Amino acid sequence: MAEGHQGGVQDHRGRQGHRPHAGGGLRRARHQGAQQGREGKGSDEGPQEGAHPPPLRVLGDPLHSSVDHNGGGARHGHGDLRRGRQGGGCVRILVLGLGTAGLYAAKWARNADPRAEIVVVERRTYPTFSPCGIPLAIEGLVSFESLKHPFPVRGNTRLLLGHEVVSVDLDSMRARVTDGSSELELSFDRLVFAPGAEPFVPPVPGAGEALGKDLFTIRVVEDGERLVRRIEEKGATRATVVGAGPIGCEISYALARRGLKVHLVEMLDRVFPRSLDPDMASHVEAYLRARGIEVRTGCPLEEVVLDDGSVVAVRACGERIPTDIVVMATGVRACTGLLEGQVDVDKGILVDERMETSREGVFAAGDVAVVRHRISGEMVMVQLASAAMRQGVVAGINAAGGDATYSGALGTFSSAMGAFEAAATGIRTGKSVKIAGFYKPEWAGGERVWLKLFLEGDRIVGAQAVGPRASAEIDVVAALIHRGATVDDALMFERSYCPGVSELNMPLSAAGEIALRRKLRR
Amino acid sequence: MAEGHQGGVQDHRGRQGHRPHAGGGLRRARHQGAQQGREGKGSDEGPQEGAHPPPLRVLGDPLHSSVDHNGGGARHGHGDLRRGRQGGGCVRILVLGLGTAGLYAAKWARNADPRAEIVVVERRTYPTFSPCGIPLAIEGLVSFESLKHPFPVRGNTRLLLGHEVVSVDLDSMRARVTDGSSELELSFDRLVFAPGAEPFVPPVPGAGEALGKDLFTIRVVEDGERLVRRIEEKGATRATVVGAGPIGCEISYALARRGLKVHLVEMLDRVFPRSLDPDMASHVEAYLRARGIEVRTGCPLEEVVLDDGSVVAVRACGERIPTDIVVMATGVRACTGLLEGQVDVDKGILVDERMETSREGVFAAGDVAVVRHRISGEMVMVQLASAAMRQGVVAGINAAGGDATYSGALGTFSSAMGAFEAAATGIRTGKSVKIAGFYKPEWAGGERVWLKLFLEGDRIVGAQAVGPRASAEIDVVAALIHRGATVDDALMFERSYCPGVSELNMPLSAAGEIALRRKLRR
Ligand SMILES: Cc1cc2nc3c(=O)[nH]c(=O)nc-3n(C[C@H](O)[C@H](O)[C@H](O)COP(=O)(O)OP(=O)(O)OC[C@H]3O[C@@H](n4cnc5c(N)ncnc54)[C@H](O)[C@@H]3O)c2cc1C
Ligand SMILES: Cc1cc2nc3c(=O)[nH]c(=O)nc-3n(C[C@H](O)[C@H](O)[C@H](O)COP(=O)(O)OP(=O)(O)OC[C@H]3O[C@@H](n4cnc5c(N)ncnc54)[C@H](O)[C@@H]3O)c2cc1C
Repeated sequence: MAEGHQGGVQDHRGRQGHRPHAGGGLRRARHQGAQQGREGKGSDEGPQEGAHPPPLRVLGDPLHSSVDHNGGGARHGHGDLRRGRQGGGCVRILVLGLGTAGLYAAKWARNADPRAEIVVVERRTYPTFSPCGIPLAIEGLVSFESLKHPFPVRGNTRLLLGHEVVSVDLDSMRARVTDGSSELELSFDRLVFAPGAEPFVPPVPGAGEALGKDLFTIRVVEDGERLVRRIEEKGATRATVVGAGPIGCEISYALARRGLKVHLVEMLDRVFPRSLDPDMASHVEAYLRARGIEVRTGCPLEEVVLDDGSVVAVRACGERIPTDIVVMATGVRACTGLLEGQVDVDKGILVDERMETSREGVFAAGDVAVVRHRISGEMVMVQLASAAMRQGVVAGINAAGGDATYSGALGTFSSAMGAFEAAATGIRTGKSVKIAGFYKPEWAGGERVWLKLFLEGDRIVGAQAVGPRASAEIDVVAALIHRGATVDDALMFERSYCPGVSELNMPLSAAGEIALRRKLRR
Repeated sequence: MAEGHQGGVQDHRGRQGHRPHAGGGLRRARHQGAQQGREGKGSDEGPQEGAHPPPLRVLGDPLHSSVDHNGGGARHGHGDLRRGRQGGGCVRILVLGLGTAGLYAAKWARNADPRAEIVVVERRTYPTFSPCGIPLAIEGLVSFESLKHPFPVRGNTRLLLGHEVVSVDLDSMRARVTDGSSELELSFDRLVFAPGAEPFVPPVPGAGEALGKDLFTIRVVEDGERLVRRIEEKGATRATVVGAGPIGCEISYALARRGLKVHLVEMLDRVFPRSLDPDMASHVEAYLRARGIEVRTGCPLEEVVLDDGSVVAVRACGERIPTDIVVMATGVRACTGLLEGQVDVDKGILVDERMETSREGVFAAGDVAVVRHRISGEMVMVQLASAAMRQGVVAGINAAGGDATYSGALGTFSSAMGAFEAAATGIRTGKSVKIAGFYKPEWAGGERVWLKLFLEGDRIVGAQAVGPRASAEIDVVAALIHRGATVDDALMFERSYCPGVSELNMPLSAAGEIALRRKLRR
């Protein structure tokens, strides 16, 4: 399909006069840079005279970085890239997907090299949105429309909305893109692969048939809108949410606030099974139960029961739970498909500390990527916006020829159910300190917060917190962990205090006190 | 006066059976340990065999500590202390003042050496309280009674309430104490001097005469109670608050919420003159003005005008401001008096990184102490509860023979006026990044927060924040500064995100983005 047939390129042409490096259409661009990605990661040609990339500096940190930090060294052989530019063109970076990772990759590629041509291809028809806000919209606190945000298209960045990438060929560094009616071929020098992940629906009887009718997964704004519309249409009064991770718990809370009788069904033995210990999870369960939610843990979903095409119940742990609506929050699967067989994949796309895949010039970031954990050193899939953002920054800078190092994932998350929060960061160990404290003093109306700090020797390596403002406590711990802090720091770092908002001896310092007392008695 | 005549000692005797080291009364204790403080800091005898202090470990951090961290080394010559204990007695630690510093010193002296005899002498008749909560009680949000808290007297700790230390002799290591009707002499091996600071009333005409009638300073619970009582008695409708630091601003807000017409009069050119830059202070001023408070900056108080013994106005910057009540929030002066001439004093008591004064065995902590700033390296008086707490911990551990290092003051403070907060940490420099961002997303109802980050090279050395949840942002910055973080960390440390409570790109990471963009373009 000729390039002129799709909106993005037309738009781009219309703006030619404004772009400092209007080297031509997307297709033409390919001819200037097509050879560049081919050599693979092995090539090691030095930078060429006359190529003058902006003097990029390091992003990252001294803890985990092992690269040369003294300006744009050609660690992975950026010679090709520069040759391409010497030829009069600019680096062409394809950003596949405008989620959190793609957004930050596009932004930071432009920051790192304002001359780079950045093409963002996004399947959805609206620029960016906040998936994490969908539970708030389901609750009715905000409108679905308010979750959609503009994406400021500046400089050499072009955005193709309503376009899906249907294939990627890393040998020729080309992608085929469709807007539903016509197809386009894009070439690129660099790829930031950020298609995110897709909800996974376990193959229980009835689920497939109910999907999209009375059974929903939640990933984009429309999913939430459809759910609410269906609740209203059907006059639903009972909902079953399957999976008690952050999304399942938040949606359960939201539906309960809408007045539905909610069953929250979880296969494992507790809510937040991946991120909270049983003792910590039990506080969340108590909170959800107090809000009328039936929390059923250790309870695998067995069947979705339909009557005349309409859901009437689910069967779980041997019991029949009458229900009008089912929401599946049973996890996601990384969208690796387009690169399968072309780069190293293990559930997600494996990347190094530059967010580069096993192919030079091909970066991955966000829910699709498998990255190194900052503390455990293991390769993990974090699948959180907080991680996607930072991975996007690094991928974007490096895609533009910069030299940024990803400091590793901590898995810092928080989940709010009204004023009650569950949050965690880092890893769990056998050595922990738990405290029931206050973020705001009890005498000033503060409510109980539980904090559990995980240690490795004296080093703080993880934390879980539950209760009002739990996430603010976790943010502080994450900052400390990020910088390699010990329990001494938990107590001794000088934190603010004002009883209108905070306690003098915060949960973190109180936990530090316990750890230090143990240390003194050793 | 014989020891038996005062409550604390009787109490102590009554409990003898429960104390593992009931070495006798406070006075007798002196005879066992009286020689110990005399040698001064120069003595350097090693630890003695047979003396077995608990193996105390280090408290502090690698950044600023220069001491031997391998267990209870006798850096300042703890030989005396141990000899004393070898003789069958225990270390006797006098904690002078049960404010924040004294409380934590007593607690941590006990933690460090459960056998130590700890005597806490406090002038007030109730154990501990939260001075920082007084503005909330003035506002009427909490009762004055709720500001008073118990002090758990455990183990070898004795508390003499309603007792004032009237003199201290460091040569003989004795203190004279009165309960108003009788006097007592206490001897001690170690002193933690924590009498805090006293409000300072500038010597303008009329102020002295009005003090305690229609003019108030606020330091203890009774001060707040008296103020509120007088407002009601007098049917006051107009108040003038002098001094626009945290206490002045909080009390202005509180009085305005009580329905009074408030003038806030500040000599310097802005509110929070010591802790906020003019641009940041202006946001606070706008907030206070929007709440009906007349903020008059650059306006020194000239006179308190009385009529028939009752305040009718103040005169400030040439103007007459009719008023019924005056609150002086014009700063405090360290209570150095009792040690003047005995230890090094410069506005406050100078201490080293062990919180030890120029006299061995004599420690000072809290509002009375002059300590090293963690970033600037200068000697400063912080006069905040957040600093007093940590200083108390270090002083307490060291007084008990442990080896703790104070990591230095950051001056981290926050001040809440309703949901609006002003907060800061660290130092100011000429190199800063300012951002108007959101703690909670705007589309989810979040309000604007301003954050200003101060840099030295790439290192974060200070921050100011203003707006809802400003203090939570400052706490994170304080944690990062404490651990020597750079602007890279501001963006890259993986923070939690959940739009019900937080933004994905928080003010701190947004400021980090600006700083990094500048860095990339260098
Ligand atoms: C309901 C919900 C609540 C959540 N709450 C939180 C939370 O509170 N905190 C948190 O940190 N995380 C939360 N998350 C997770 C967070 O949203 C994701 O981790 C984050 O969005 C991942 O970013 P990403 O860019 O990798 O993927 P995505 O945001 O999924 O973006 C991928 C984009 O790529 C597009 N795309 C995919 N394939 C193609 C293709 N072939 N062609 C063109 N475009 C394509 C998609 O349309 C999509 O826009 C939540 C997720 C959901 C669904
Ligand atoms: C209204 C107000 C609001 C504040 N708000 C905040 C805030 O929000 N955040 C913050 O960090 N800080 C705040 N502060 C400051 C904070 O209260 C002090 O920094 C802190 O209390 C200092 O602790 P300290 O132990 O050194 O002194 P203090 O708390 O003053 O304790 C000293 C104690 O020693 C006793 N004492 C003194 N001399 C003798 C003697 N000779 N014999 C026996 N006892 C004696 C006193 O009675 C007193 O109890 C506020 C202060 C006030 C007054």
